[in-house]
Amino acid sequence: MIIFYSPDLAETMALPEEESAHCVRVLRMKVGERITVVDGRGNRFLCGITDADPRRVGVDIIQKEYAPDGRGRGITLVVAPTKNIDRIEWLLEKATEMGVARIVLVKCARSERKNVNPDRLRKILISAMKQSLKTELPDLVAFPSFNEFITMQKDWAGRRVMGYCDEKFPRLSFVKEFRPGQDVNILIGPEGDFSPEEVELAVTAGYQPVTFGDTRLRTETAALYAVEAVHILYDLQ
Amino acid sequence: MIIFYSPDLAETMALPEEESAHCVRVLRMKVGERITVVDGRGNRFLCGITDADPRRVGVDIIQKEYAPDGRGRGITLVVAPTKNIDRIEWLLEKATEMGVARIVLVKCARSERKNVNPDRLRKILISAMKQSLKTELPDLVAFPSFNEFITMQKDWAGRRVMGYCDEKFPRLSFVKEFRPGQDVNILIGPEGDFSPEEVELAVTAGYQPVTFGDTRLRTETAALYAVEAVHILYDLQ
Repeated sequence: MIIFYSPDLAETMALPEEESAHCVRVLRMKVGERITVVDGRGNRFLCGITDADPRRVGVDIIQKEYAPDGRGRGITLVVAPTKNIDRIEWLLEKATEMGVARIVLVKCARSERKNVNPDRLRKILISAMKQSLKTELPDLVAFPSFNEFITMQKDWAGRRVMGYCDEKFPRLSFVKEFRPGQDVNILIGPEGDFSPEEVELAVTAGYQPVTFGDTRLRTETAALYAVEAVHILYDLQ
Repeated sequence: MIIFYSPDLAETMALPEEESAHCVRVLRMKVGERITVVDGRGNRFLCGITDADPRRVGVDIIQKEYAPDGRGRGITLVVAPTKNIDRIEWLLEKATEMGVARIVLVKCARSERKNVNPDRLRKILISAMKQSLKTELPDLVAFPSFNEFITMQKDWAGRRVMGYCDEKFPRLSFVKEFRPGQDVNILIGPEGDFSPEEVELAVTAGYQPVTFGDTRLRTETAALYAVEAVHILYDLQ
């Protein structure tokens, strides 16, 4: 099944430029053919093509269904992007496939990477959402400093945990600690770990240091372990 | 900590060519410096460099420790390689970081990929083992046909499960079904799914169809979900 993404379909009655080009130039679809469109906010539309313009495919809506997949499960993943951006792009794809509600890319004191391209990263999220037949697109927040993030997250609901390598603070096992049914904010440090100031800030803001198993994991592997752990704990219920 | 790999250190008293080049040309290590070497079978050696030859670094063994990490946890992952080999290379890295005892790349009827490069793939396993500070290297078996695999695995111990998309056979939830403490053989199909003949063969050989959560996952994502699920179920104990 091929799915298209249009965040404002009900207003524009059209596909965005990139989706339009894919529809007409790559898939060679024509006026009258039917397509499925999701808006990333839980709505799925059955549409007919009314204008096969490769820059802006016009459609009419035959059927609309509110079908949230609920796979985000209140998970906010906060991660410092890796030096090699491929690893973060891979993480964004996999976390979206598994299910995540919000991804925050945060700039830490010891981050080697000082910039990201949110448009490119958002395309990866969209592609993974479509590929895994989801109707909800994770929110992407890029690229606050650690201090900005701490301010930003004050009102966010749910548990707060932090994957953290040092042993200054006692750490709990994440999988033993987490209970399905609550939102969770998971903070994963950069390759050089959090700075002592960041650890203090996070602990003060309520982030509980946790471990993800007893093996040394790369940043992106630890992040995916945490997301999968939440899903597995739900699946175990 | 920088770790070197030498599968036959105790016999050769040397590093293999690629590790030697890395040691001398990249890291510029010299005679008398100390290095840590693992043999991929659970042994860790503290060595001194006696010959800084970039084709064959000679060492003497100062200390030997049998320190199996036990992270393989009796997991055999059997997977059909994806059309895009990057996805399988990524899976090999991540499964090794998480921990897996044996990886079998199997050629299925509907596999689009008809060849793999075992030497290149083994290098990825070695690199991931070293990076995650493990002492045991997963076995890599590449590239039997599905029929050859079914014959090969007859005497392997443990549970047999199969990630499978069709609904002809009733499927159990893998995370609800698996109990830590037993070896497990996890079979993951190709992008076009198993052929009906392969499903019959596998079911006859004792593979129980299972699901990995209720979302549509790519081949490599399903495989990693399964490996992580085993570890999480151990970590929950």
